[in-house]
Amino acid sequence: MTGILYVVGVGPGDPELMTLKAARLIGAADLVAFFSKCGRKGHARRVADGHLAPGVRELHFEYPFTTEIAVENPRYLTDMGVFYEQCAKTLGDELGSGADVVLLCEGDPFFYGSAMYLYDRLRARYRCEIVPGITGMSGCWSRAGAPMTHGDDVLSVLPATLDEDTLVTRLQACDAAVIMKLGSNLAKVRAALDRAGLADRAIYVERGTMEDEIILPFAELTRAKVPYFAIVLIPGRQGAR
Amino acid sequence: MTGILYVVGVGPGDPELMTLKAARLIGAADLVAFFSKCGRKGHARRVADGHLAPGVRELHFEYPFTTEIAVENPRYLTDMGVFYEQCAKTLGDELGSGADVVLLCEGDPFFYGSAMYLYDRLRARYRCEIVPGITGMSGCWSRAGAPMTHGDDVLSVLPATLDEDTLVTRLQACDAAVIMKLGSNLAKVRAALDRAGLADRAIYVERGTMEDEIILPFAELTRAKVPYFAIVLIPGRQGAR
Repeated sequence: MTGILYVVGVGPGDPELMTLKAARLIGAADLVAFFSKCGRKGHARRVADGHLAPGVRELHFEYPFTTEIAVENPRYLTDMGVFYEQCAKTLGDELGSGADVVLLCEGDPFFYGSAMYLYDRLRARYRCEIVPGITGMSGCWSRAGAPMTHGDDVLSVLPATLDEDTLVTRLQACDAAVIMKLGSNLAKVRAALDRAGLADRAIYVERGTMEDEIILPFAELTRAKVPYFAIVLIPGRQGAR
Repeated sequence: MTGILYVVGVGPGDPELMTLKAARLIGAADLVAFFSKCGRKGHARRVADGHLAPGVRELHFEYPFTTEIAVENPRYLTDMGVFYEQCAKTLGDELGSGADVVLLCEGDPFFYGSAMYLYDRLRARYRCEIVPGITGMSGCWSRAGAPMTHGDDVLSVLPATLDEDTLVTRLQACDAAVIMKLGSNLAKVRAALDRAGLADRAIYVERGTMEDEIILPFAELTRAKVPYFAIVLIPGRQGAR
């Protein structure tokens, strides 16, 4: 008998925004695994803090790098591939020995989550169950009090890593938008929002649902540097009815 | 002292996919409100079943119509506007008398939710708190075992009510897509997926996370009629690393 891999979303940061199912699985786990930036505990592990049973075993997967190497650099894909292979091997050994594993994931596992790269490598050999989580963007628009999509609105989720012209084109072709992974792309995103005529409607959110969250009109954002996970919300049509 | 309006997402259908916060607020509520199709109990109310305290008061808002009148018909907006005004008046009277209200919402309240129309009418006068929920689409892609967005993927959420040419254009401009509100638009969506060359990658999901869910490759869907809330998933790039 092999074990089951539970891929569990823990939500956007506020521990109370975890699902009942996630809390049950985390509380019953003998073995949890999670990613974090090198030298950090990681958001997902921190959110799970209050639910872990005493004596739970932990597999801590530290990324070899996060933003230190550009995605365009060939080393990025190669080194991350090696890292994910090693993580999958570690999980596979546990699952093969009959242990169930709860893999903790920030937000929703299948929405820009690292867990997908382990799931893709393990799904053929082991039983997997995915537990969705509240996405970071849902947490952010709820805290911002910003209804996002009404009626027939088209929503586009755009990584800030797209080039400026593509961002402008995509922004003009939707009613509501979320721009993810702001980080070092802030100046480009600001220019794209200006060109698309959306700067006045945009909302900036940093660490949404966490204790130290920051929410303000994008036009009032004066800092030149923002965190990687900061996002911009452009709510859809307002007062449609 | 006026009451607080809690706008609470209960998730996609599986009661265990409610958040801890939603369960706490629903369990402590003296007064809950919810929408449903005329003559039905409603998904949101059913999901809350196991959490409501004995003797809780309930405000049941039955839509005057759902799909019987086309959105293009001028009566749709007018009659729905009157309906939302009445609902907001009812909630406002309760809030004004000092009662807190928990407004139960399917999925995530600010993602195509009817609750937004009440929130828009009440937010200026009453304190409101929004509790995000797992969206229907997250529930569906988790159950389908379909990782949706990797790395720099663009995700577009497209209502099936868009015309066929627009659907094709939008589908061709993204890496991953969700087509919502399939219902009577099935034939048009099928044609759009074919023209965009995506029919083989598309996944059909009906009542995702519920006991009677149906998940199958879109190409194997032979029925001519599907429910309004059925959706199509087009996962982004696979095995990117």
